Formats: sequence, C-alpha cells, structure tokens
Amino acid sequence: MRTAQIFRLSMAHPGDLSELDRLIAGGTVRAVEIVAIIGKTEGNGGVNDFTRGYFTQTLMAMLAKHLDEPAEQLIREIPCVLSGGTEGVMSPHYSVFCAGEGEPARGAGPSLAIGTAFSAPVAAEDVGRRAHIDSVANAVRAAIAAAEIEHLGDVHFVQVKCPCVTVARAAAAIAAGKTPLTSDPNKSMAFARAAGAFGVAVALGELAPSVFQEGSLLSDFSIQSPRASISSGVEVESNEVVVLGNSARWAGPLRIAHRPMADALDIGAVVDVLADLDIEAKPQVSAADAMKIATVLVKCEPDRRGKIRGYRHTMLDDTDINAQRHVRGAVAGLVAGVIGDGRIFVSGGAEHQGPDGGGLVAVIASREGSA
Amino acid sequence: MRTAQIFRLSMAHPGDLSELDRLIAGGTVRAVEIVAIIGKTEGNGGVNDFTRGYFTQTLMAMLAKHLDEPAEQLIREIPCVLSGGTEGVMSPHYSVFCAGEGEPARGAGPSLAIGTAFSAPVAAEDVGRRAHIDSVANAVRAAIAAAEIEHLGDVHFVQVKCPCVTVARAAAAIAAGKTPLTSDPNKSMAFARAAGAFGVAVALGELAPSVFQEGSLLSDFSIQSPRASISSGVEVESNEVVVLGNSARWAGPLRIAHRPMADALDIGAVVDVLADLDIEAKPQVSAADAMKIATVLVKCEPDRRGKIRGYRHTMLDDTDINAQRHVRGAVAGLVAGVIGDGRIFVSGGAEHQGPDGGGLVAVIASREGSA
Amino acid sequence: MRTAQIFRLSMAHPGDLSELDRLIAGGTVRAVEIVAIIGKTEGNGGVNDFTRGYFTQTLMAMLAKHLDEPAEQLIREIPCVLSGGTEGVMSPHYSVFCAGEGEPARGAGPSLAIGTAFSAPVAAEDVGRRAHIDSVANAVRAAIAAAEIEHLGDVHFVQVKCPCVTVARAAAAIAAGKTPLTSDPNKSMAFARAAGAFGVAVALGELAPSVFQEGSLLSDFSIQSPRASISSGVEVESNEVVVLGNSARWAGPLRIAHRPMADALDIGAVVDVLADLDIEAKPQVSAADAMKIATVLVKCEPDRRGKIRGYRHTMLDDTDINAQRHVRGAVAGLVAGVIGDGRIFVSGGAEHQGPDGGGLVAVIASREGSA
Amino acid sequence: MRTAQIFRLSMAHPGDLSELDRLIAGGTVRAVEIVAIIGKTEGNGGVNDFTRGYFTQTLMAMLAKHLDEPAEQLIREIPCVLSGGTEGVMSPHYSVFCAGEGEPARGAGPSLAIGTAFSAPVAAEDVGRRAHIDSVANAVRAAIAAAEIEHLGDVHFVQVKCPCVTVARAAAAIAAGKTPLTSDPNKSMAFARAAGAFGVAVALGELAPSVFQEGSLLSDFSIQSPRASISSGVEVESNEVVVLGNSARWAGPLRIAHRPMADALDIGAVVDVLADLDIEAKPQVSAADAMKIATVLVKCEPDRRGKIRGYRHTMLDDTDINAQRHVRGAVAGLVAGVIGDGRIFVSGGAEHQGPDGGGLVAVIASREGSA
Repeated sequence: MRTAQIFRLSMAHPGDLSELDRLIAGGTVRAVEIVAIIGKTEGNGGVNDFTRGYFTQTLMAMLAKHLDEPAEQLIREIPCVLSGGTEGVMSPHYSVFCAGEGEPARGAGPSLAIGTAFSAPVAAEDVGRRAHIDSVANAVRAAIAAAEIEHLGDVHFVQVKCPCVTVARAAAAIAAGKTPLTSDPNKSMAFARAAGAFGVAVALGELAPSVFQEGSLLSDFSIQSPRASISSGVEVESNEVVVLGNSARWAGPLRIAHRPMADALDIGAVVDVLADLDIEAKPQVSAADAMKIATVLVKCEPDRRGKIRGYRHTMLDDTDINAQRHVRGAVAGLVAGVIGDGRIFVSGGAEHQGPDGGGLVAVIASREGSA
Repeated sequence: MRTAQIFRLSMAHPGDLSELDRLIAGGTVRAVEIVAIIGKTEGNGGVNDFTRGYFTQTLMAMLAKHLDEPAEQLIREIPCVLSGGTEGVMSPHYSVFCAGEGEPARGAGPSLAIGTAFSAPVAAEDVGRRAHIDSVANAVRAAIAAAEIEHLGDVHFVQVKCPCVTVARAAAAIAAGKTPLTSDPNKSMAFARAAGAFGVAVALGELAPSVFQEGSLLSDFSIQSPRASISSGVEVESNEVVVLGNSARWAGPLRIAHRPMADALDIGAVVDVLADLDIEAKPQVSAADAMKIATVLVKCEPDRRGKIRGYRHTMLDDTDINAQRHVRGAVAGLVAGVIGDGRIFVSGGAEHQGPDGGGLVAVIASREGSA
Repeated sequence: MRTAQIFRLSMAHPGDLSELDRLIAGGTVRAVEIVAIIGKTEGNGGVNDFTRGYFTQTLMAMLAKHLDEPAEQLIREIPCVLSGGTEGVMSPHYSVFCAGEGEPARGAGPSLAIGTAFSAPVAAEDVGRRAHIDSVANAVRAAIAAAEIEHLGDVHFVQVKCPCVTVARAAAAIAAGKTPLTSDPNKSMAFARAAGAFGVAVALGELAPSVFQEGSLLSDFSIQSPRASISSGVEVESNEVVVLGNSARWAGPLRIAHRPMADALDIGAVVDVLADLDIEAKPQVSAADAMKIATVLVKCEPDRRGKIRGYRHTMLDDTDINAQRHVRGAVAGLVAGVIGDGRIFVSGGAEHQGPDGGGLVAVIASREGSA
Repeated sequence: MRTAQIFRLSMAHPGDLSELDRLIAGGTVRAVEIVAIIGKTEGNGGVNDFTRGYFTQTLMAMLAKHLDEPAEQLIREIPCVLSGGTEGVMSPHYSVFCAGEGEPARGAGPSLAIGTAFSAPVAAEDVGRRAHIDSVANAVRAAIAAAEIEHLGDVHFVQVKCPCVTVARAAAAIAAGKTPLTSDPNKSMAFARAAGAFGVAVALGELAPSVFQEGSLLSDFSIQSPRASISSGVEVESNEVVVLGNSARWAGPLRIAHRPMADALDIGAVVDVLADLDIEAKPQVSAADAMKIATVLVKCEPDRRGKIRGYRHTMLDDTDINAQRHVRGAVAGLVAGVIGDGRIFVSGGAEHQGPDGGGLVAVIASREGSA
C-alpha cells in the first residue's frame, strides 16, 4: 500500500539543504519518493523575500544531481512551498513529504495521503481574478484525485502557492495593453492568496462558483475555507498544490487533523487538534508525545478590524514592521508554546482561510512511537 | 488599612490619557492616590522610541491639572514605567496603581502592597557600572520599606526604569573627560538593564555585592533575579522603582504571584502562576476568571546562544527587526493565548532577570469577583 | 510694512522645544508673531509616527504659557506642519515662521509673504474625495488672501497638512453607515495627499474642477501642481494650510523660489532654484552663502513605475523599509550635498506634487548677509 | 598587452544572471577572462542578507557550465564581492571585470590593472584580530603582484570581502574552547571590516604593523586607508581581494581614480574624482560623458559622533532601520545625482576606510567614447 513519510529538517541558512542531502546519500530518504516540500525560510515573507528562491534553487540542483533529471524539470514536478519569515521563536526548517510503498501499519485505518498538482502559468493580469480561481480549483481537484482521497471531508489541508505581480511584471502587463488588478506587489500577494482560497473552497464543494463575484475577494470575508493554506510569492508562475488528507488507500502510522482558529488567541484550537490525534497538551505536549508530531501547519491573519476580543492591536498601523510579520510571530509564540518546539510552519496572509481574523491549524502525527 | 487598586486602561495613541482623565473626573480614581503607572506604548521599544516620553508628558500634564502641582514635580514622585513595543497581539494599555485606605476584604490575608522610590540621577559614565548597581539597590530598599513588606520573600516583582546613554549623551560625557561604558545606545540600554537586575538582586539579598565584578554584567548570566523587571530608556535620568509584593499590613482583594520562565516556550510558568492565584487555565482562562486578573507583567529575552530547545532561532541575526521586538511578540502571543487578553505588559531585555534565555511572569489578581 | 522672519532651530528629541523657548524668553522671537511651523521630526513618517503629535503638544503647551491662551485654541490658529522621518543625513529641526512689522530692506522688491488658513474638520468618509479637494482649495484661497499675494504666479509653495483615516477611524465611520475610500491607513494617507494636491492646483488656477473625476486621484498623474507640498497624518482633523510667496506688500530680506524636480536624480533643479536666488553651488554652496539660506523645502516620490532613468529601483518592493523612507533618504542625500547642511525639510508622498516620479524643491534665502 | 574590460549589468532579482549568460553565449564576454565581480544586491546588507549567497551560487553554477569546471572550485578563484542593500535610488547591478589580451589603445598611458587573491580561511576566533589583519595584508600584496602594479601609489581601490561570525559560528568556536572577539554578528562584521582596512593599509605601506594594537580596531579612527573598501558577510570563509589600479603594463581605454570623502555631504570629492578622469559634472555628468563611466565604487559611514557638520543625525539611534542602510541611501542619493545613474556600488561600514565619518569614492572611466 502507499505510505507517506515526513522528514522535518533544519537548515543553517536558506541555501543549506545538507541534512536532506545526507539522508538521501545515506539511503534513509529515496529521492524518487519526494513529492513535496513545505518549509519556513528566514526572509521577510514579502515581495522582496529571496530566501524562498534561494532554497528552491539549491533544493532542485541537489535533487537533479540525485535523480539525474534537469532542475528545470523537477521544479515543475515537486511543489516546494516556502513561507518566508521565522519571526520570534520559529526555527527555519522544511518538511519533506515522501510517498512510497510500505506494509500497512498495525491498527490499520485511514492514513495520511498526499497528492500534488501544478496549474498552467497565471498571467499577471489574471492574478486575483476568476481565471485565477478556476485555475486553482482545477489543480486542487487533480491533486485530490492523485491522493486517492475518496471523500472531500477527508481532505484536511490544501496548500497552494500562487504567483503574484511585482512592479516590473505589472508594468510589463500594462505595456502589453493588459490591466492587472494592481501594480502594488503587497496588494497583489493578498489578491493572489484570496483567489487561492476561493479556488480551494470551490474544489472542496464549500463554495459554488455562481454565488460570488470577483469583487468578493478581499471584501466578503464570510467566504472562507478552513482547510485552505495559501502562500504567494514572486518566484512562482503557476499555482502549485499540495493536498493532505486521510485515506483508506494509504497505510502508514501518520494521520492528519485540522481545526479552524477563531482568532489569534485561540489556544483552544491548538489543544483540540492535538486531541483529535490523541495527543494531550496540559499545558504543553510531553517530550514523548512531541516525538510523535511530524509537522505543524498554521495560517493566521492580523484582524482587519483593528481589534482582538475588543482591544486595539497595532499590527495594521505599523510602518516599521509588516503586519504579517507581526501576526506570524505572535501566533507562532502561542502554538510553539503548546507544542514545545519552534519548528512549526506559521504562515500569514490568511485572507478567506479560516475565520476572519483567525486562521487554521493542522497537525500530522504518528499513531504511536515517534514520527 | 492600606488598600491597593489597579485600573487597567486602554489608549487610542500614546498621548491619549482620556480614560484615566474620565475616571478621575468621575471620582472613580482619586488622583492623589495614584502611586505608579506601568504600561505598554506602541513605539519600537528602542532608543528612538518617543512614545514613552509622549505618554509621560501627557500623563503628568493631566495629573498636574487635577492635583494642582507642577508636572515637573510629579514626574519625580510618580514612577511612570513604560515599555515600548506592542508587537503582535499586544494591546496598548496602562495599569494605574493606586494606594488608599479601605476596609479589610473578607477572608483577610496578606494583600497586594506597593512601594516606590526614586534614586538620584545617574551620570552617563556611571550607566552600567557598580555605582549604578548601588543606586538601584538603595532605591529598591527604600521602596520595600515604603511598601511595608516585612519579609523579602513576599516581594514578587520589582520594576526599575533605568537611564541609558544616547550618542549625544555619550559624546557629552567624553567631551567632559569621562569614559562611558559605550557610546552605542542599544548596548547602553542592555548594560543599564543588567545593572538594574544586579541592584534588585542585591537589595533582595539574592546576591552579595562582594561576589561579582563589574565585568559580570552581561557576561555571567548565572547571576539573575527572578523578581527583577528592568526597562531602560532615554527619557529618564534617575532610577525609578516600583516594588510589588504581598503584605499583612495591606488589605484589599488583590494578590500577586510570580514564576520564573525557563525559556520563551515556557507555557507551564504561565499556567503555574495563575494556579498560585487559584485561577485555572485549561487551556485558556475562562471569561469569568479573566475578569479577576488585574494585570500581567512579563519579561523575556531572545536566547543569546541562538537556539531554543536545541533548534536555531533567527532573532539575533535579523538586521530588519530588532531582537527584542521579535521576542516580545512571540512571548506575548503565548501569554495572551493563555490569558485570553492582549492587554499584557511584555517587556524585552531580560538580561539577568530570570533564567538565561527566559524571564519571568507575574500576575496580580483578585481573590474573588472582578479585579 | 509686514516682514517675514524664519528661525531654523534644532531639537534633541521630538519633545524638545527648548531653543524656541529660549529665543522667546530672550526676546529674539515674539511669540505673538509666530504664524506657522514647518519641521522634520525623527519618526517613521507613517501612520504610527507619534513624534509629530508629541512635538505639537509640546509646542502648543509652551506657546500657551507665553501667550496666555489655551493650547487647544492655538492648535487651531498656528499650522504646525511636521513631516516624520529624518532618514540618512537629515537633521531633526523646525522652521519658525514669524510675521511682524519692520522697515523695508534695502534694494526693496517683493519679499517673502506668508498666509495661513484652517479648514473645517474632514470626515473620515470624505478623505480623498471631492469634498476633501474643495475643502483644501477654499483654505488655500483664504491663505493667499491672508498673505496679500496679488498674483497667483507669485505663490511658490503651498504646504497643506491633511487628515487621514486610521483603522479605528475607518471602522467607526463604517459602523456609522459611511463608506471610507479605504480602511488601510497608508493608502488613506496617499489619497489624502492626492486630494490636497488637487485642491492646491484648483486654488492656483492650474486645474479646473470640471476636468477631473474623483477617480483621477492616484491614477491620472499628468495632473499635478509643482507648488503643492502635502503631508498627511493621524494627528490632524482639519486641513492646515501655509502659503509662501513673494509680495510687494511685504518688506524684509527674504525671498522664495521653487523648481519642479523631474525625478529623484534631478540635481539640476536644486542648483537652479539656488541660482534663482543668486546663490551659486559649484558643486556645493559656500559656507558664506549657506548662511543666507533660511530654509529648504522638498517633496519627492519613489517612482511608481519601478524605474529611474531606465534602471530598476527596489523601493516599492521592499517589505522591510517603507518606500517613502527610502526616497526621502536618497533625495535628502542629494539636496543636503548641494546645500552642505542636513537641516532640510524633505517630505515623501509627492503624488501629484510636481512631475510624476519627481517632486519639487523650494528655497527661502536672504538677499544678503545671513538669514 | 593585458587589457581590462568592465561589463556593468542589471539583474531582475538576486538569482538573475541572465544578462551575463547572454553575453557569454553571444561571445561578447569570454568566461575564461572573468577575474572578479563587484555588485549590489537588494538585501538588507546585514548578517541575514542571503541575496549575496543566492547571487554567488547562481553565478558560479552558470560559470561552471560555461567553463566546465566545478562551481566549488570557481568560488575559490573568482572573487565575487557583493554588497547588500540598494536603498533609495540605487539599482541592483553587478560589474564583471575581465582581463584579456588586446591592442594598446590610442594615446597610450597607464591603464586599468586588476589583480586578485584569496587568503586561507579565517577561524571564527581570529576574526577582527591581528591574525586577520596579517591574512588580509598578505593577500593584498599577492593581488598587487598579480596586477603588475609597480608603484603602490598607483593602487586606487582595494576591495576585500572578509568573513565574520554568526551566532552559530561563535557558539561553535566557544564550544571548541576558543574565544571569539564577540558573538554579536553585527559587531563581528564591524571588526572584520576594521581588520580588512588595517590589512590594506599595512600592505599599501600606509601603516606600520608595529604602531598599532589589536585594540586600535574600531577605536583609533585616525588609522585609515583611503583606498580600502571592505565588506563582510556570513557567506565567505576566506578573505577575497580585488586590487584595482593603473599600470603601464596594461593597455585599454579604462583608467581609475579615487578620492577620500570627508563626510557624507562631500559632493566635492565626487566632482573631483570625475575631474581626475577628465569628466565634468556641472552639476550632473552629461549623457555623453555618462557613457564613459564604467563603474562607480563608494564607501561611506554614519558618523559615530552623532553629528554631521555640527548638526545631529539620527542614524545611530534608530531601532527600525540599520544605520548602514541609512547612510548608504543618503550617500547613494548624492553620488547618483552627480553621475545621473543609480547603478553605483555604495557600501556601508567604512570604518577605517577613508576619513572618520566619511569614506571614499572611486570611478573607472574610459578615456574616450563609451565604457
């Protein structure tokens, strides 16, 4: 049966893939079984965060060497989803998702299933528009099929990396007679994330294409998917999709669960998602249980309305520190405190991804022993 | 008997004292009973954070009006300890500490006691040196006496605001033939905080003056006081001290407890200090219990050794965001998640204040009903 | 005859008005003759820059003391236009504009004339809309009349400080059923500056109200006034206007000139405006001539199109440093290099103020001797 | 005769070497003749600036392909000196220095000569110490010999890239029983730059090894070399040296000149160095003359004493923006304004490199026609 494995590895800098290189060289990881990477690099997470591109270039060159396949080809086959910004207690790391064949684990039951897909490139003028949403939705459907997840309810986390415009890309599109939604890169990233979330919601059957307008993006925040995790960056041109869920077609010790986060203080969601996986946090996960945790994936958002539980926050009015950096640092502090580990994926820009002002948390853990 | 009260108030900006003004005008707060202010303003918390000075100027002008006493005098009588930086989920707020006379509360026992003191001005060349330590220690002793706390073990939190040098102050001292420890303002703030912590430890009998050298500051981190909370800023010239503890000489519903924090992930310390006050967090304090909490005071620090529980953090290598802003945001995310409220005082720069790489958390809460 | 004087003073921090206090106490400045202040404070120049409010509060309290008039009244009579951000070589300073009576200077001719005006408060939902433009235009006309400048061509610099929304103000307006143009404070500041520039252009007869739409703001950059200098900030609710020009009704040694700047590299504009005032820069103004210069006022802008003279700049794609901080630092470096003095007013956000991607430079200098 | 050529190329992002790739593919640049790269990438210029490593990795992989030699080898043969930070008007670009054989140019005379050298790796505990200085001096001597520059007076610019410690490197050294000068990466970078400048001064005969102490670094600022340009970064382990001067052994149209800059406002130095190369700036270089300019190299420094020409600057007290970013932006604004081009190399951290508080400017230009 198909079996998923996750290797959570540290890096000394964004171009340091030495841990994975060693695991491949030593035979622990089979390069051909790597299907996706999700990681946190220590950039600023904004338009001018080049740590993502640096990591990806290094990764693909290394895999090209092991697989004897051109890096240019690999980059279109293996989603490498990086979120920049390891604010506060977060530790730069990457989770390597592998899919191979293995014996069914004891106490069988649905196990972690992984599927991936790539869309065609998204034109600068389409970013954040309906064409973008459709492109994402189709790619998500393809990834679900690839993962052999039969029930949409068993999908727990859909990671999409969407392209955005830079000032230069927008100018080129305008010169070509096109009309990008915006020339402001930070705004474009927000629209791209919104389009990704809508696309996931459509693909998961949570949202009918007919009931929203293009104008709903970044405006009607009642539309959301608590299973969508969208990043956006200058270094991709296509939508890259990783679907994670549980499936009876997969064996192995890993399972995934998720919970929406109501706001940036929703520690209950973190404790609950761990309980879904039979892990107790009182208040922190024990050292033994911490070893069962394979990876932690979080999306969060500075509340647009300027308040959290009735009290003013200052994230959106700060000219010195980007609001996404603020909220990532805060929510990572909370989640890492419960987990007892800074190697968590906390990504900002959660527009339409979980409750407005909140987000979501997903955890993958082993049924027993260590992940 | 003497009775302590705390009013935790919000501000719309650093010059907004309107909530306190209204409470005084309405008779809820008696201006003459205000003995100290501890608050968080939305600056950057560094040398060029002028939100602290702005708040203080506004506060003193307002109190001067109510008390018919010059602001220049009040500023030398009422410690106004502000920590800049409301990163992440923190909400700008200030706690007004009042000391008056009242009836003993039911179920009497030791209650929150407050004492304050001011040292003489500290010369630029003394900042971070033994003369600075002695100056702090003497002021702390005076504040403990003023608080009528009989046992040093009943002191739970000693807030000191220390002066530091700016480039200009250091240059002036050098021009006058003096030798400041450093001309780098951020470094000076660190030495000032260290001197403050040593001074508290000496005053609390935790540290004998004979067993350390000036060179121990910022170098021997085994020396620390888990009850010292030190801020430093350009806007003060003297050490300003606020001592908080429990004393049988005081009545009233409030009590204080504190716990050292082992590191930035030490959620257990937060839960434990609440338990010391008979408040349960599972995982979050209930809405009813949250009303009992009068104020929350936290010190924290980016681990100097570059790692948290074995994994690399990036706070100290970041040229874009100051390390103290990083750690405040993370620890505030953790503590606010447990408390369920962003109105917490989280201050960075915890050198020698609690365990190395960690810090401390103190909570003041009411025995029953709301604070 | 009426005579204008300018005192350019330094500050040690944003709450330091001691130089002006001394000049008033010593009789050099008559407090009653102060008509306007234009200065640079060392904040970040963004929504959360409170150095402007701090300075203003301190100034008004000090003047209130000297004039025996409430600060709340003075703040509605004396425009205090502050631009936050002393990036790079800029030195925090403020120019005090005084209007008194004096003997005509030798070699008479039109001399510096000053006029000021305040509009009514601008509602949050009007910011950046036609009502805002009209409000500015009317205030500019009133200020020109007050300055007794007969020909619109003799107006050389119109400074307007416009209100903007914060997240909180926008939320309040929305709660009241209004529709602000945006809830994003940085965006609101940009719209407010655009409205101010349109208002100035209308008042100066450069732009007919009928030929533009509300949608022209921040979109049709062919519309611009090379004499408009607009700031925006959270600390004002009305439009505050200072008109500077030359008038035969005024005596005194000072004159003003201005030049549009074509782009951020337009050193020629700086040299030319000095030449208009008979001051030579080859390449730097001589020490003797530098003493004639009373004040220097500059507006600039990061080129929206992402390039300067064909080469890519990175100001707009930077998540770490706000684009306005970038461009202020660069243009101040250029202008201060020509002038030989860092006490220059360089303000970002020059949308519609001078050529697109450029801005303007105005200089006030004495005909002879020192300013 | 040996002939030097410079290709100044733009990049779309730090991993974009496509312009050079095209020039090599088209035969304009012979890969084997590339001897050094000096460029500006759009990072923050600090310890966590990974744009330099990203560019270098991309460059070396591309050259490895063209030269059929391993990238690991090339990186030890071709100095790639990158300065992060394109603040303000600077445009990301890189100058490719080529040395080949060519016919002597008309009107022969000494022409631009280039020499390079690499030292052995510098241990973490040696960074900023005498061993570091000696290592640099020896490498500079080797590079001068390689450049065949006979008189030390004909050396005009010595670029050295020095290693520094990160928190991790420092911790490793301490664990190994060594004592690094500091564990603070930003401080380490400063000491490394100082050591580089002392090494250059020693090699150029400007400074006798016997007349200074280790303690002179970052303390006796009367020791300086107006021809040293030192960068420091985490991505190198050896000192990499590029010597530029004029030599009768070289032919070709290019010549180099340099001038010390007295302070950050020293526009005269920029005009003078151009005049040394028979290029007039009044106030800006003409478009025709601008084409003669091959590259512009500048070092600068925020004045440690907190003032420029008597007036306070705020660069050193700013917790939001690193002081080096401030000064680079300002000086680049000045130099780019004179040159009329944002493709200039302006690097901060000029401790001991030119006058205290100033720095140096070097220009390479063609005798006639375009560079």
